[in-house]
Amino acid sequence: MAASALLKSRVRRPSYLEKLMKAEDLVHHFPHGSYIGWSGFTGVGYPKKVPAALADHVQKNSLQGKLKYSLFVGASSGAETETRWAELDMIERRSPHQVGKAISKGINEGRIKFFDKHLSMFPSDLIYGYYTLNKAQPKLDVAVIEASAITEDGGIVPTASVGASPEIVQMAEKVIIEVNTSIPSFEGLHDIASFNDLPPNRKPYLITKPEDRIGTTYIPVDPEKVIAIVESDSSDQTSPNSPEDDTSRAIASNLLEFLKHEVNHGRLPKSLLPIQSGIGNIANAVVGGLSKGDTGADFTHLKVWTEVLQDTFLDLFDSGRLDFATATSVRFSPEGFNRFYNNWERYADKILLRSQQISNSPEIIRRLGCISMNTPIEVDIYAHANSTCVMGSRMLNGLGGSADFLRNAKYSIMHTPSTRASKTDPEGVSCIVPFATHVDQTEHDLDVIVTEQGLADVRGLSPRERARLIIRQCAHSDYQPILSDYLDRAEFECLKKGMGHEPHLLFEAFKMHKNLQEKGTMKIDSWL
Amino acid sequence: MAASALLKSRVRRPSYLEKLMKAEDLVHHFPHGSYIGWSGFTGVGYPKKVPAALADHVQKNSLQGKLKYSLFVGASSGAETETRWAELDMIERRSPHQVGKAISKGINEGRIKFFDKHLSMFPSDLIYGYYTLNKAQPKLDVAVIEASAITEDGGIVPTASVGASPEIVQMAEKVIIEVNTSIPSFEGLHDIASFNDLPPNRKPYLITKPEDRIGTTYIPVDPEKVIAIVESDSSDQTSPNSPEDDTSRAIASNLLEFLKHEVNHGRLPKSLLPIQSGIGNIANAVVGGLSKGDTGADFTHLKVWTEVLQDTFLDLFDSGRLDFATATSVRFSPEGFNRFYNNWERYADKILLRSQQISNSPEIIRRLGCISMNTPIEVDIYAHANSTCVMGSRMLNGLGGSADFLRNAKYSIMHTPSTRASKTDPEGVSCIVPFATHVDQTEHDLDVIVTEQGLADVRGLSPRERARLIIRQCAHSDYQPILSDYLDRAEFECLKKGMGHEPHLLFEAFKMHKNLQEKGTMKIDSWL
Repeated sequence: MAASALLKSRVRRPSYLEKLMKAEDLVHHFPHGSYIGWSGFTGVGYPKKVPAALADHVQKNSLQGKLKYSLFVGASSGAETETRWAELDMIERRSPHQVGKAISKGINEGRIKFFDKHLSMFPSDLIYGYYTLNKAQPKLDVAVIEASAITEDGGIVPTASVGASPEIVQMAEKVIIEVNTSIPSFEGLHDIASFNDLPPNRKPYLITKPEDRIGTTYIPVDPEKVIAIVESDSSDQTSPNSPEDDTSRAIASNLLEFLKHEVNHGRLPKSLLPIQSGIGNIANAVVGGLSKGDTGADFTHLKVWTEVLQDTFLDLFDSGRLDFATATSVRFSPEGFNRFYNNWERYADKILLRSQQISNSPEIIRRLGCISMNTPIEVDIYAHANSTCVMGSRMLNGLGGSADFLRNAKYSIMHTPSTRASKTDPEGVSCIVPFATHVDQTEHDLDVIVTEQGLADVRGLSPRERARLIIRQCAHSDYQPILSDYLDRAEFECLKKGMGHEPHLLFEAFKMHKNLQEKGTMKIDSWL
Repeated sequence: MAASALLKSRVRRPSYLEKLMKAEDLVHHFPHGSYIGWSGFTGVGYPKKVPAALADHVQKNSLQGKLKYSLFVGASSGAETETRWAELDMIERRSPHQVGKAISKGINEGRIKFFDKHLSMFPSDLIYGYYTLNKAQPKLDVAVIEASAITEDGGIVPTASVGASPEIVQMAEKVIIEVNTSIPSFEGLHDIASFNDLPPNRKPYLITKPEDRIGTTYIPVDPEKVIAIVESDSSDQTSPNSPEDDTSRAIASNLLEFLKHEVNHGRLPKSLLPIQSGIGNIANAVVGGLSKGDTGADFTHLKVWTEVLQDTFLDLFDSGRLDFATATSVRFSPEGFNRFYNNWERYADKILLRSQQISNSPEIIRRLGCISMNTPIEVDIYAHANSTCVMGSRMLNGLGGSADFLRNAKYSIMHTPSTRASKTDPEGVSCIVPFATHVDQTEHDLDVIVTEQGLADVRGLSPRERARLIIRQCAHSDYQPILSDYLDRAEFECLKKGMGHEPHLLFEAFKMHKNLQEKGTMKIDSWL
């Protein structure tokens, strides 16, 4: 197959050009039961051509349920690939994170075996062999990795994410590279440092600032493992960012007030400490507020150490307040990507993409003293948070990096609206509950809970102090009396039995959830 | 006051000898409401004289409840001090860990405000000011630290533990040093590296092997803060180690078989990886089994990276299998301490004591790839574990370092008997339950659950796979049908609703616990 001039300009390793193939001619490398790794993280930088060719193959030949794979991707892949695979019943097993209705449906209906894992640990557990324990050869069979360029050594220059690609390449017997010529080369934007020694030979990550580089600008790969390259002309199918609303702005305002307070008390420098911010409209409102200096939060020379950068960080750069940002992916909207590409010189030397083992590393997060902000499903009165399973059972997307950051940050902050709508009640679901129905972050991890109602600073407080404060500051007024009544009763019952450290009415603890399931609202009449 | 020759031989800073005082003359430094830090960790290395003098003062003058303190100790202190303070109602607030019936009684009756925190994080949160947020001066008022010697610079050479002493000294306005002349000088046994820079100026911990030294042999202290030294002649009041029994030996045997299996599959070197082992009879049986090479577990050149060393590690040294061990405390029995002191040359250059911020550091635990083994209160079928609160509410001792290790180790192992006795049923309590009543370790953290019944290797498994395996391998035969029935029903109910990732009967999940409370056993007749 003849390579286009454009492709040749990206692939500096001549031997790879001889391996140029069409995606549809690679289907035979993927027999039923294969263990497959893809590049990709938060819906960017994932392979497009090979997954689509396999889906086409299954669809054309009615092989639904007959070609099934164990699929490993750093975090979520693109909707048009992963969703299609899920719809075609091509996923037997999946780890460590996913996004998309079809795949979560498959997981929650019991067809897809899903194991969500700390995103920092997934790559190391992969190279330990923990995901291939039952294979004769404890390797991934095929890795499919998106590249924006290939170096002389055959190294892979990733696109908009690094994720777990270095470790997936390291663990794969065969590697297929999709060279995406529809987007600019990202060369120079990455720092790849996780070509991994195993214990007892691991070394420290010598990073003390977000801008520190400790690796190469490409993913090293053994060229003999590369069985094919495929030219790709499809860009990441991202969606627009979630817009701010009154609630998210109120939450952001409470949070910025708190950061100002910490600066005033000398516990934070005026440039804050490296910021980690999640995905969603609250995160966008917080970053938006930082850009505008809202509520007098006039912070400058900010730095960001996070998992994923969204459009709002471009605004923060443009405001002149942000000096540097590093993450494992840039998940911009289509407009955001255009803005990024059209102003490459303005942004490129202030952004660095790392592997998720580094971006989410407890070692570095703790050393840097990050300010970590994430949104849970629910938080309980003692500051345990549920990040994954609605009603304790229904998986949303997975743990992601929330626990990597919230366990290790200097400031571990959960922000959430105080309520969400149920089908029949605009405030039918309280996000502050007596007992989290699934615990991903423990009371030992969280420092601050914030809703549009207010902020609870629970540092150093005993459980009963914490509970009073969270109910008073964070719960919606409709739920404050219900939660206070729970706490009063629980204290009375438990203290009299000499078990009142963290008082619960254990056998009534999920009554609000039960009421929601049966009557469409968590507003119960009584705890009796 | 004249110093004895023995004391002079220990105190190489002449100016300190001028500050020699009797403990009872220091009482005025401790007004009601003071924030106090003690040295000490797992009941060794704690101050004896000053706490006793304060307790005597309260007792003689009937000041119970009128002289109350916020008390911070790296982990637990000695029974004769902390217990006495609790009995005399002298503790208003306590963090981050405690041991002793009187203090847990005070906590569970609501008189003592207790906040348990990851032991690795407590010292850094302390210097961040998180425990002194509400004080005008965000400092500890007085630190009381046990020393076995004083250097020319006035630095403190600790005794059998380091714990949080470096940070407590750093945060204290006044420092009182108890020089213990009844035990040998421990000089040379410590590596103190946590005199702390704050973010953004923190540095990596350049440790890649358990024997690496990165600090000083003493705790640096500003000599002007030292208001007094006190001579102490009391040794640590430790108790004998918990003896092995058939159950703990069976658990250890299952665990050693697993480690052998991992070596055979090339996932562990023959010298294993640095071992972390908790306190208690299972831990002792595991270390005992390693010493004897039980079940063919013929491992040599072992190294230990742990929180606390017990007597069994002396046996492991004597067996010739252990090359080096590091921890933040040596909690030997009285006989163990004699054995250690009488054979100082044999052990001293193979043991290193560090601050708990280092011994429990996620950075180092993850880098070294530790094998971490701990005992929970209960584990649920999806591999969440409760380490702290019985029935979700009654505090035992606190989180300790369990989550520091289990989150970050290469092998995260929970070992427990499958059942414990209730008052009326020798197997009235199943340690495998449907839903943990308090979650300290999440399903994202644990790799292996082991009981005397067998071992469940849950790496890479989805929740439903994990649950089947844990019930089959780990649960007691009396509880297997009960737990299987729960899982069957939960799967049926949740899968049909499309919420079956982690199936629960949420509103029945604590029925076994309810039955225990009401009828003295978790053996329920039915889930209906």
